[in-house]
Amino acid sequence: MLFVDGGVCAPKGFLASGIGCGIRKAGKKDLALIVSQKRCAAAGVYTKNLVKGAPIIVTQEHIKNGYARAVIVNSGNANTCNDNGIDIAEGMCELVEKFTGVSSSDVVVGSTGVIGQKLSLEPISCGMPALVMGLGKNSEDAATAIMTTDTVKKEVAVKFELGGKTVKMGAIAKGSGMIHPDMATMLVFVTTDAAINPEMLQKALEFSIQDSFNMISVDRDTSTNDTMVVLANGMAENQEIISEGKDFDAFKAALYELSLDLSRRIAKDGEGATKLLECVVTGAKSAEDARKIAKSVICSPLLKCAMFGSDANWGRVLCAIGYAGADVDVTKVAVGFKSEAGEIRVCENGGGIEFSEEKAKEVLSCGDIIINATLGDGNATATAFGCDLTYDYVKINGDYRS
Amino acid sequence: MLFVDGGVCAPKGFLASGIGCGIRKAGKKDLALIVSQKRCAAAGVYTKNLVKGAPIIVTQEHIKNGYARAVIVNSGNANTCNDNGIDIAEGMCELVEKFTGVSSSDVVVGSTGVIGQKLSLEPISCGMPALVMGLGKNSEDAATAIMTTDTVKKEVAVKFELGGKTVKMGAIAKGSGMIHPDMATMLVFVTTDAAINPEMLQKALEFSIQDSFNMISVDRDTSTNDTMVVLANGMAENQEIISEGKDFDAFKAALYELSLDLSRRIAKDGEGATKLLECVVTGAKSAEDARKIAKSVICSPLLKCAMFGSDANWGRVLCAIGYAGADVDVTKVAVGFKSEAGEIRVCENGGGIEFSEEKAKEVLSCGDIIINATLGDGNATATAFGCDLTYDYVKINGDYRS
Repeated sequence: MLFVDGGVCAPKGFLASGIGCGIRKAGKKDLALIVSQKRCAAAGVYTKNLVKGAPIIVTQEHIKNGYARAVIVNSGNANTCNDNGIDIAEGMCELVEKFTGVSSSDVVVGSTGVIGQKLSLEPISCGMPALVMGLGKNSEDAATAIMTTDTVKKEVAVKFELGGKTVKMGAIAKGSGMIHPDMATMLVFVTTDAAINPEMLQKALEFSIQDSFNMISVDRDTSTNDTMVVLANGMAENQEIISEGKDFDAFKAALYELSLDLSRRIAKDGEGATKLLECVVTGAKSAEDARKIAKSVICSPLLKCAMFGSDANWGRVLCAIGYAGADVDVTKVAVGFKSEAGEIRVCENGGGIEFSEEKAKEVLSCGDIIINATLGDGNATATAFGCDLTYDYVKINGDYRS
Repeated sequence: MLFVDGGVCAPKGFLASGIGCGIRKAGKKDLALIVSQKRCAAAGVYTKNLVKGAPIIVTQEHIKNGYARAVIVNSGNANTCNDNGIDIAEGMCELVEKFTGVSSSDVVVGSTGVIGQKLSLEPISCGMPALVMGLGKNSEDAATAIMTTDTVKKEVAVKFELGGKTVKMGAIAKGSGMIHPDMATMLVFVTTDAAINPEMLQKALEFSIQDSFNMISVDRDTSTNDTMVVLANGMAENQEIISEGKDFDAFKAALYELSLDLSRRIAKDGEGATKLLECVVTGAKSAEDARKIAKSVICSPLLKCAMFGSDANWGRVLCAIGYAGADVDVTKVAVGFKSEAGEIRVCENGGGIEFSEEKAKEVLSCGDIIINATLGDGNATATAFGCDLTYDYVKINGDYRS
């Protein structure tokens, strides 16, 4: 498997576009479109929050037959908790039909931004001609148009072999605040020219998120609009994947690698973040215990602040392990920190050991920090992705709406 | 029931003292002692964190017979995750015996501060003469000596009648960061001259924390050292409470009111906090659902930031209700904000309503904010206590150890 350029337009037959239509201020891009030349097998996973954005309800309805062909997404307004939300989301799909000919029931729709402010179709309608005219190998524009407080756009593509055919898979994603996915992350749209039926596509999707998007947390707030949709148009002409086997494994592995890459990028671009934190738990009794512990550590506001301050306050790691709700013998825990500046052990058998504070400061002053927690209780492992908690997180969220 | 002065020294027969012995820097008070003239019925609740401070293990052992007479507490070091922790905690109790004659097995011990740094008995031993000489009606000194990042000391006392006798109850508490109690809060020591046996005292304690300390969250980090201990020395000469009934109800009510008062103060003095947040949930299907929702709202970092910025971003309230894990119909939820500047409704039937942003800003610019969430699903209610998330929280915790 190789990483390649092109984002969602890397696979054959996918075009994308992104424009500013006036939902966000100051001419920022806020409307994205992805269209496939051929109808695609489609699979999706969504937030488990009981408050669900209207676009999710419409998308679920549209892809329940297993097929879709286009994706339209706006940023700047979540179209959530509005009594006309469904009509607006349906209206966005109808605009796609009107301007591209893709049946509105084959359109996936997404919205991200402020909750509870009515979204008007007018700017979207006015923007449609430019949006459609912009269709091309423009994954970057689409990736930019779905950003809110993100500071970097997130797109990725890979290529790999399926039964002698070269297959590509690309994705764009956004997510910065309100990130604690439970089923999927904020917004992730994946395209592939692989031939795979909807059932196997859904299966691959559910597998791939478990140790990637579902292991990110920026702030423990599970969004109302988390959506991840994969579209597979079959134009790579591999033999269609309709069951388990070597091809399915290869496809699943590619989707997982791509998800993992995006997960790291989303965590690193958490609101206000200066550092990517990865908590690697080894030696857990079960995968479930390992996941609980890794996520608990990555979620601790106190640890997140300590990492911001490059302070090797490992007691906060122990504390977060202790309240994770996992089955663990805390007297056997060892903790270390690692970065490109080196590695340092700070705790063994649940207690402190002598270490150089100077060296620790050096290790923790890097941008990507790995927190190793070795439990000595078994063989299960898990990794969770998060970021530090900074002044800027408070600044960004103290006055988000204005 | 009346609030009175005197803290833990308000009830008959309790003396307290607080000094600086050098565990904390710059001559800050860091060692507290409370002694009763008579042996007391004793009850305690402790953190559910699997990582438990050594003082908790020693305290549990000392009061398992239901009796105690003194409390010694240091701040500046949590005596947790150290291999000699138990010896040090026992050593602190033995110092109390040596200098006061109270049997070491009747001593409750507490420590709060950094986790995983060895605590030396030496400064405590050197400080004992001054600590004992300072014993008097000095609840304030003891309250000051148990503070860490707290900015205000927390003490309270009440008086009430039990069978014609006037009974007093006092408490000191500390807690600012790592506050998300599960069984008790950071450190709370309650004294009373009521006569009550250990079983009924434990029962009253467990009742009183449920809707007070267990409903606070500053940062969702459940401490390793949470402890609440009540000592009742019987010197008010009421008929000893040995069963349910009118007297027990009156005692329980007093302990609950006192706990509630301290809970508000702990939440308001959360690390870096500028505002006390109370989420009042009404109309829930069950008390359990109400508690889950109130706590979920109070814990949302996004909402906490919005409250810091006086931003009426009610979508974040809905979002937190949606992921609370409670049984709730989100299409019936109404939300309002209230403070001394007035009250404003911002959401009905799960959706936004027109409101004056100016008025909302005014309401949210006060120091004590009530977030009303009306569910319309039943009759259960709950209130949770929290605080805003500010730059100072990050500052305090970015470099706590230095």
